[in-house]
Amino acid sequence: MARRFFQLIIMCYLIGWVFVTKKGYQVVDDTIESSVVTKVKGIARVNTTFSDLWGPEEYVIPDHGGKFLFVVTNFIETPNQTLTTCPESPSVPFSTCTHDDNCTEGEAVRAGNGIKTGTCRKTDGNETNTCEIYGWCPTEKSSRPEAATMLREAENFTVYIRNFIKFSQFNLSKTNILKEGYPSYIKTCLHDEIHHPYCPVFRLGDIVSKAGYRFEEVAAKGGSIGIVIKWSCDFDMDTSDCHPQYSFMAMGSSTPVTAGYNFRFARYSSDAAGRTHRNLYKVYGFQLNVMVFGTASQFSIIHTIINVASVLTLMAVGSYICDVILLFMVKKKYAKFESLIKADKEIALQKMPDHSKRKFSY
Amino acid sequence: MARRFFQLIIMCYLIGWVFVTKKGYQVVDDTIESSVVTKVKGIARVNTTFSDLWGPEEYVIPDHGGKFLFVVTNFIETPNQTLTTCPESPSVPFSTCTHDDNCTEGEAVRAGNGIKTGTCRKTDGNETNTCEIYGWCPTEKSSRPEAATMLREAENFTVYIRNFIKFSQFNLSKTNILKEGYPSYIKTCLHDEIHHPYCPVFRLGDIVSKAGYRFEEVAAKGGSIGIVIKWSCDFDMDTSDCHPQYSFMAMGSSTPVTAGYNFRFARYSSDAAGRTHRNLYKVYGFQLNVMVFGTASQFSIIHTIINVASVLTLMAVGSYICDVILLFMVKKKYAKFESLIKADKEIALQKMPDHSKRKFSY
Amino acid sequence: MARRFFQLIIMCYLIGWVFVTKKGYQVVDDTIESSVVTKVKGIARVNTTFSDLWGPEEYVIPDHGGKFLFVVTNFIETPNQTLTTCPESPSVPFSTCTHDDNCTEGEAVRAGNGIKTGTCRKTDGNETNTCEIYGWCPTEKSSRPEAATMLREAENFTVYIRNFIKFSQFNLSKTNILKEGYPSYIKTCLHDEIHHPYCPVFRLGDIVSKAGYRFEEVAAKGGSIGIVIKWSCDFDMDTSDCHPQYSFMAMGSSTPVTAGYNFRFARYSSDAAGRTHRNLYKVYGFQLNVMVFGTASQFSIIHTIINVASVLTLMAVGSYICDVILLFMVKKKYAKFESLIKADKEIALQKMPDHSKRKFSY
Repeated sequence: MARRFFQLIIMCYLIGWVFVTKKGYQVVDDTIESSVVTKVKGIARVNTTFSDLWGPEEYVIPDHGGKFLFVVTNFIETPNQTLTTCPESPSVPFSTCTHDDNCTEGEAVRAGNGIKTGTCRKTDGNETNTCEIYGWCPTEKSSRPEAATMLREAENFTVYIRNFIKFSQFNLSKTNILKEGYPSYIKTCLHDEIHHPYCPVFRLGDIVSKAGYRFEEVAAKGGSIGIVIKWSCDFDMDTSDCHPQYSFMAMGSSTPVTAGYNFRFARYSSDAAGRTHRNLYKVYGFQLNVMVFGTASQFSIIHTIINVASVLTLMAVGSYICDVILLFMVKKKYAKFESLIKADKEIALQKMPDHSKRKFSY
Repeated sequence: MARRFFQLIIMCYLIGWVFVTKKGYQVVDDTIESSVVTKVKGIARVNTTFSDLWGPEEYVIPDHGGKFLFVVTNFIETPNQTLTTCPESPSVPFSTCTHDDNCTEGEAVRAGNGIKTGTCRKTDGNETNTCEIYGWCPTEKSSRPEAATMLREAENFTVYIRNFIKFSQFNLSKTNILKEGYPSYIKTCLHDEIHHPYCPVFRLGDIVSKAGYRFEEVAAKGGSIGIVIKWSCDFDMDTSDCHPQYSFMAMGSSTPVTAGYNFRFARYSSDAAGRTHRNLYKVYGFQLNVMVFGTASQFSIIHTIINVASVLTLMAVGSYICDVILLFMVKKKYAKFESLIKADKEIALQKMPDHSKRKFSY
Repeated sequence: MARRFFQLIIMCYLIGWVFVTKKGYQVVDDTIESSVVTKVKGIARVNTTFSDLWGPEEYVIPDHGGKFLFVVTNFIETPNQTLTTCPESPSVPFSTCTHDDNCTEGEAVRAGNGIKTGTCRKTDGNETNTCEIYGWCPTEKSSRPEAATMLREAENFTVYIRNFIKFSQFNLSKTNILKEGYPSYIKTCLHDEIHHPYCPVFRLGDIVSKAGYRFEEVAAKGGSIGIVIKWSCDFDMDTSDCHPQYSFMAMGSSTPVTAGYNFRFARYSSDAAGRTHRNLYKVYGFQLNVMVFGTASQFSIIHTIINVASVLTLMAVGSYICDVILLFMVKKKYAKFESLIKADKEIALQKMPDHSKRKFSY
């Protein structure tokens, strides 16, 4: 009984786990060669000394649309900095002072904006005194950017993602762009799981909300988003069935300390006198990171044989172990009975005619 | 017979598949730490307002030679743009209009170049009317770039690729640069599978043609190329035998919709009045993506034991199953014979002297 | 005896290898989704025409703090280049000439700085004659940069690394930033394996020395460093025990040919007459590459069953094979004895009473 039950379990495992779930009859290739091209479109009004309108050339960093891209949605501008002396920003740790002795000349404070001149000075707007520095002055205002500078239009920016993949082992390649009605369709469509599942153009607002972020909040202080493209191609079926699946992940915790994404960059210019000026931008925004995962599988006679053999092995050994265990249990439980039976048997044998003993010996 | 045959198959499998093909006696490390340095060299004549000669500082983006790089081979220049009003480009979807009512003031069209002012205007060169926008004007000409702007010299550009790899598990590292005759050899050699297989300098034209692209075509509209460096290091052999293998892949389909690679960037400048001007470049070219794959393997006593045990298991169980199947077949086929034999046996037993019965019982 | 010994070995293997070392009772997820944010801080005095103080906006390339970043520690500046004619640099291969016939007009030398004009000219500083070129002039001085231009302060620069990881299979995420005492702690702490193991801010000098480089040497000529963050999370234990482990690797061999890391970039400007000037920088420095590896494991009933079954199989078959081998050996050794025993047995049987024969037959 137990033996049959065990064999049934193994049989279910054979059919269920190995061949249906794990597709044990297939060889799997999970080294995927992938190429990603991205392009962001949209126009936003901004308020900078540099320009009052930003296009992708201004708000996407870096320019070349690869798998990593950053879309600026907020910024602090510090226009017209020059190399001169000014009081250090009070937000820099250990920058405050009471008199000149606190400011060692020539020292560069960690995370500071310049090199100390040795003088303690009153900061321009504040009441506090900080060490004077030689550096790009005036220093950046440390306050969180006002909502006024935010690129509210960013929610409607569109992100076009082109992904080309190749499975070298099977010499098969696929792209996430279908060929019907292009390129006019691409110029006007917008990805939608129900109506436009194969449109490669995504609204930035949709990406952000699907990742689980609140747009307003993350646009202000920045954040990382993973755009995962999953390919699971079964080449035993029609290859045209092998479609990409998009998912979006918030790549940052919601606690204020570890959240946010910002960096600084500067634009330089020279005046008539040859002096260098720079506009410093501390930008906040969405870091988009396209990650491509994929597996391709195909029927393989060797894999089928190996898996069938493994399962049969498991089955054979399983029933053998089953027997051993049963025998063991039976032996212990009926140890007394057995000795009685044995005794009976011998008595019986003595009484029986010769030819019938044969059967017992089997 | 069948049993011996089965054992022979298993034996062949043991030697052939597990130990020769799969190298089952080795432990494999496929987490490879890799560092890639690239450098492009070459000079090309161009026709831009900015300069009439481009070196790597101009045509390679980004500057820092990492594993992703883009070589500009064609471009559309839109010089001297300023923020003002002009008619939208007719190639933008939904930009054409018949009168002012079609142009909602303050609206930013998706994929457009600016914000609508509410006026319908005749485009400069064309006969069509489009909505007037506020943005970087004049807008980019939408035509495919003329062959005249193409960097024909790009075919002879050279790409130097340095790859350093490390297998942490084995604490072994390798580089694709051999040490003989350097650095003078590097400065003059050119990769060639037969004569210079270990020269790390590749001609761009060779890379493109090996990837299966036609240079002229892809230089005009752009394309992605994967440069795959494969390391398969068997540390049981001499480590100096572990050499890189280069291969080149076209990472894009040949259909016009999904082909091509381009992006835009701008160079900014200010005039005496402080107004910002920009030169907009839509650049086409080769996106090179160096991908490094590798496995290192070394003899491992544990792996050898496990694999030998697995094969022996398969063999033992295989022959057991063989027996069971044979027995089953024999039983069915000779079921009639058997009952006859059994009957005969019992008759014989009755007739036999006692001491000879023993043998039969075995 | 041998059988018991074999079973003991298998038992040790079962407990030791499969369940303790390999954690065979767990399912493992090694596809890790990771996001890396880096930020470098520090100020260095430099001696360029462009500015005499460099902050992160100047010495970190590219700006956006991703997983690849380059910190400039040394450079050769070639200020105020314009497109004109000048003698080629003598360090370019095949640039020297004796008279005009050596210089084919219109030819661009590989690795050269411009296009030959057809004239052979004396180089400005040197005694050698080289072909005149049209290109960005004057050409770069080929000498290794003097120690004077080196950013000595770079040793004290700090690198902040934020890493967020996600294991999709288990739907669990972690960050390398702990939440206690932040953000004030981050602004002042410095990573130290003993006192501050969870501080995400590293001193550049420490990173370089831990990678096994000598700072002075590599700061001068450049080098690649891999910053490896390893996560091995056992979700059967408390998830708060899953901490990152940092290690640093020199990603370059120590031989002079393959060592070093440098690239060139240019800053452009226009004078009043509209002519483009550029400052060319050949920069040397540290290429930092943050690599994240990780595995997560969790108890899985299916994996436990499969592994137990495999080990039992190995055990059962092992002892079977043991028996067969023993039997074989015994058979051969005692072949003679056996025949004698057999003969004895038969004689004994003839003499014995019927009912006791039964026992022998078993």
